[in-house]
Amino acid sequence: MSDPRPPPPPPHPFARAVPEGDDRERLVCGDCGFVLYDNPKIVVGSVARWGDKVLMCRRAIDPRKGFWTLPAGYLELNESTRAGAEREAWEEARAKIAIESLLAIYDITRLSQVQLIYRARLVDAAVSAGPESLEVALFSWDEIPWDDIAFPSVRWALLHEREVEQGGDSTPRGNPPPDESPPGPVAPQGL
Amino acid sequence: MSDPRPPPPPPHPFARAVPEGDDRERLVCGDCGFVLYDNPKIVVGSVARWGDKVLMCRRAIDPRKGFWTLPAGYLELNESTRAGAEREAWEEARAKIAIESLLAIYDITRLSQVQLIYRARLVDAAVSAGPESLEVALFSWDEIPWDDIAFPSVRWALLHEREVEQGGDSTPRGNPPPDESPPGPVAPQGL
Repeated sequence: MSDPRPPPPPPHPFARAVPEGDDRERLVCGDCGFVLYDNPKIVVGSVARWGDKVLMCRRAIDPRKGFWTLPAGYLELNESTRAGAEREAWEEARAKIAIESLLAIYDITRLSQVQLIYRARLVDAAVSAGPESLEVALFSWDEIPWDDIAFPSVRWALLHEREVEQGGDSTPRGNPPPDESPPGPVAPQGL
Repeated sequence: MSDPRPPPPPPHPFARAVPEGDDRERLVCGDCGFVLYDNPKIVVGSVARWGDKVLMCRRAIDPRKGFWTLPAGYLELNESTRAGAEREAWEEARAKIAIESLLAIYDITRLSQVQLIYRARLVDAAVSAGPESLEVALFSWDEIPWDDIAFPSVRWALLHEREVEQGGDSTPRGNPPPDESPPGPVAPQGL
């Protein structure tokens, strides 16, 4: 606790190898044979509405500190995806939300991340910044800070929410075609 | 390779502790401070139809060896959820499928597992058992071996597929209420 040095890396001499009975490379310890299975991670989040406004959070942490995002983060062990989206809204915006339906599944394959974004409504308008947010706000469509969005999937979710609100069918959306998603930062963690 | 003994457990003396800046217990190495983040796993699978029949696989591996399941398994790194469902259909049933839409998201919180089950159709009827299946079959509704289903979520997916086929709305389903899901084995891996 009083030692300011970062911890050393783990002592396992991991190397890529195909374990017996498997068909692809995993990280296997050269000393003891321990196989470190690494799996894609699940991000859960929401587009939460209050009247015609949506809840957004300005990030207090890197990556993309200072940019606007939706409340979202990693699903925890033994947690349902809806409960996870509710927890993230509370942690990042002190917002109580009621989940309505699945808006979209985004595959961020480069980062081995699957994002499940729900439509939700705020139970009340009392929101405030949690520890990972500099500020939170309720934006009407025209007020959304489009030039300061943290990650492409935040933009996708807002556009998909808009489609559904305007009477589009409510089938869950997926990644937009590549030419509709200009290059930009992608979330290494959370949205 | 020639040593028949199982590998020893990994040498890290992991213990549960709350890392600095975190708010819940993780497995932390008492020697080096390495934090082993453990996250829920994603299972991807499909209900694949050929005419009025659905594709099922009889498990060649534990758990629930000998019982019937749907083609499904863990999503791999850098893989989209749809590609994962297609891969599993190929690996377990040598089936080429075309994904249509998301049928259901099942939260198996006890196992920290999120199952994404897609509706799909077989591209052709040529299917055969892959290495993890004893046999595969195309069953009409009345032929499904209901008494020999491997896991509750397999039953849920079949019933949800039936609802959609019979004209129900196609909003993705979730876990049925607890009283509709009698106790039974739950998949520790895959479906």
